Amino acid sequence: MLSVEEATRRVLTTARLLPAETVMLAEATGRTLRTDLRADRDFPPFDRVAMDGIALNFSAIQNNVLEFPIEHTQFAGQAPKPLQSPQAAVEIMTGAVLPPGTDTVVRYEDLTIDTAPNGQRIATVVVAPPHAGHNVHARAADRRQGDVLVPAGTRLGPAEIAVAATVGAATLPVTRLPRLAVVSTGDELVDITETPLAHQIRRSNTYMLQAALSATGATAEAFHFNDDPAALRQGLPGLLRGFDAVILSGGVSKGQADFLPATLRELGVEQIFHEVQQRPGKPFWFGQQAGGAVVFALPGNPVSTFVNYYRYVQPWLQCSQRPDLQPTALSYAVLAADFTFKPHITHFLNVRLEAAPDGRLMAHPQRAGGSGDLAGLLQCDGFLELPPEPELFTAGSVFPVWRFRA
Amino acid sequence: MLSVEEATRRVLTTARLLPAETVMLAEATGRTLRTDLRADRDFPPFDRVAMDGIALNFSAIQNNVLEFPIEHTQFAGQAPKPLQSPQAAVEIMTGAVLPPGTDTVVRYEDLTIDTAPNGQRIATVVVAPPHAGHNVHARAADRRQGDVLVPAGTRLGPAEIAVAATVGAATLPVTRLPRLAVVSTGDELVDITETPLAHQIRRSNTYMLQAALSATGATAEAFHFNDDPAALRQGLPGLLRGFDAVILSGGVSKGQADFLPATLRELGVEQIFHEVQQRPGKPFWFGQQAGGAVVFALPGNPVSTFVNYYRYVQPWLQCSQRPDLQPTALSYAVLAADFTFKPHITHFLNVRLEAAPDGRLMAHPQRAGGSGDLAGLLQCDGFLELPPEPELFTAGSVFPVWRFRA
Repeated sequence: MLSVEEATRRVLTTARLLPAETVMLAEATGRTLRTDLRADRDFPPFDRVAMDGIALNFSAIQNNVLEFPIEHTQFAGQAPKPLQSPQAAVEIMTGAVLPPGTDTVVRYEDLTIDTAPNGQRIATVVVAPPHAGHNVHARAADRRQGDVLVPAGTRLGPAEIAVAATVGAATLPVTRLPRLAVVSTGDELVDITETPLAHQIRRSNTYMLQAALSATGATAEAFHFNDDPAALRQGLPGLLRGFDAVILSGGVSKGQADFLPATLRELGVEQIFHEVQQRPGKPFWFGQQAGGAVVFALPGNPVSTFVNYYRYVQPWLQCSQRPDLQPTALSYAVLAADFTFKPHITHFLNVRLEAAPDGRLMAHPQRAGGSGDLAGLLQCDGFLELPPEPELFTAGSVFPVWRFRA
Repeated sequence: MLSVEEATRRVLTTARLLPAETVMLAEATGRTLRTDLRADRDFPPFDRVAMDGIALNFSAIQNNVLEFPIEHTQFAGQAPKPLQSPQAAVEIMTGAVLPPGTDTVVRYEDLTIDTAPNGQRIATVVVAPPHAGHNVHARAADRRQGDVLVPAGTRLGPAEIAVAATVGAATLPVTRLPRLAVVSTGDELVDITETPLAHQIRRSNTYMLQAALSATGATAEAFHFNDDPAALRQGLPGLLRGFDAVILSGGVSKGQADFLPATLRELGVEQIFHEVQQRPGKPFWFGQQAGGAVVFALPGNPVSTFVNYYRYVQPWLQCSQRPDLQPTALSYAVLAADFTFKPHITHFLNVRLEAAPDGRLMAHPQRAGGSGDLAGLLQCDGFLELPPEPELFTAGSVFPVWRFRA
């Protein structure tokens, strides 16, 4: 049986960078940029006034001039008018272009302004600027025209979206999101709008999977099949053709109604592995149709579905957007209490996470009633990945953590 | 001038729990539940078979019986048929109801099945179950009918959505999301589809704010006003009437074109504070129309807008959903290198975050070109909140961190 590491490797090997598509800037948040985004101008594009006040020529300050007649006032968004006299000043607003003939800005807080009897306004500098260029955000100080600002492969957050706006990228090429089908199987499952009979329960895994997928930006269509090989043979081919990945839950264990592995092989889906040395989630079946859809057939117990989604499906989705992404846990947490687990297989431990004031992420083990205890997840924030050895995991040890809350 | 703590307190005081609305379960992810969600049945609702194999009566095992004729086979989703003889067994599948007359399940891995010449199938137990109830997920083991599963006020993640499906909550009452307007001001700003003149730049703050808000589930309409009191007087009243909060950027500093504070007061928006002892983002103006919209008038420099959004607007949004939420930073990070900041005001330091393999979140200070250096945010993941004292912050110290990447 495969180790978790080997199963991960085989899953991620099937991930292919999806094609590019063009979206409006406002729709691009969370998507992955497909080309380098370059500066169309210098950043800032001009010597930019950084404070409200007056612009002057620093040589006057060096010559001990402190009183400056104001020649004119210049606002942001106006073409700059040059300073005529190096002994005078331009009243100036944040965001304006520094006027020709000036090199320094003194902010209002560091000066007074009075009006002479002839109506001439005079600024008196109270706190002299320490050097030329003070309170000026110099042209190209941050980036030069042509510089790569955001490299291809970056996930677009608010900062990248703002930079894209600045360079006029009203649309952006991004990697297409995967098309996903989530499929529940099981004769015991009824729709959430139905009242189950005593021996039935309502479907929940497809809702869980759709909720988890929505956090990645991907959307998924939901389907259900009963434990009936004929229904599977009829329904699955369309899903295998129409989606990048099909995520099934249930029907993959050793039961007489577990028709999925055989049916999938019969439909031409190559089995890449079945069963992983882990608890919960061991009966995970994984395969791929030649050149086509990837099939995650997850065990149907809700906690097993949950663990395998976060441990295998979500990293695969990320690789379909950014194939260079490291297939490792995104974060680590400190086990807050001793924990014993005897079987020598990987154990995904239900934990509540605490961002401790000492900067450590603490993982508190939570009571779990086995892979059927869906309600046990309500008190948890993620799974701590405990390796096959040792049996006693001591408080203070650090392990990868798979989080399922933002 | 207010401290960051006092400004936070005054901002959050204006947050009101928004009214409830009903949404489809599939749309409820990320929303805040408005009523307690209770178990409609026991969890599990019946003694549930946890493994594929045979169900038997443990007393037979105690009597050293190891060979069990199989009376019938029962699948998940079928009404259970009782075991006739306590010396026999029912072949049984995961998810099925434990048949009356049985109390224990032996999985296929722990038995063999042969067929006698008369066609009778006989299971031979190889590994005897250790106790009655083995491999049975007992009725009500996890939760009892009527138990509160998810309390009102919970943010709905995949686990809560799955539990809601299980109890048949096809729709859920959730707190309405705030209606938000994001407004840029400034004569120097042109649309992102335009080619700016030498003294102009493209709008970016509204795109940044919309991108940041989309992560909270809220949506925002974008508006723009030039630095023109008449335009502001004409346009702002409609926004104050139509939205829960108006988030402005620009026009709040000491410049001659900074008309917003006076215009807002003129329109009946009570000023709650103007200016906070912090860098960047000091000129932040905050107010509220009596019984109406809250107004965040953020300084327009992009880094200032960014810092104030994450430090004040996002916590306010969270309080509009869950008023009992603690208005504290969600996480803490360890300063990775010494850093000096002389002014005795709160400093929001640009940092790159690293989830270190020792379980600590490390904050690496990044070069920043001041509050106009939008591109400087591209290398950052958040802001470390350094208090007014001391001047030298030593590596290894821990501070609250405001993250802007998932």
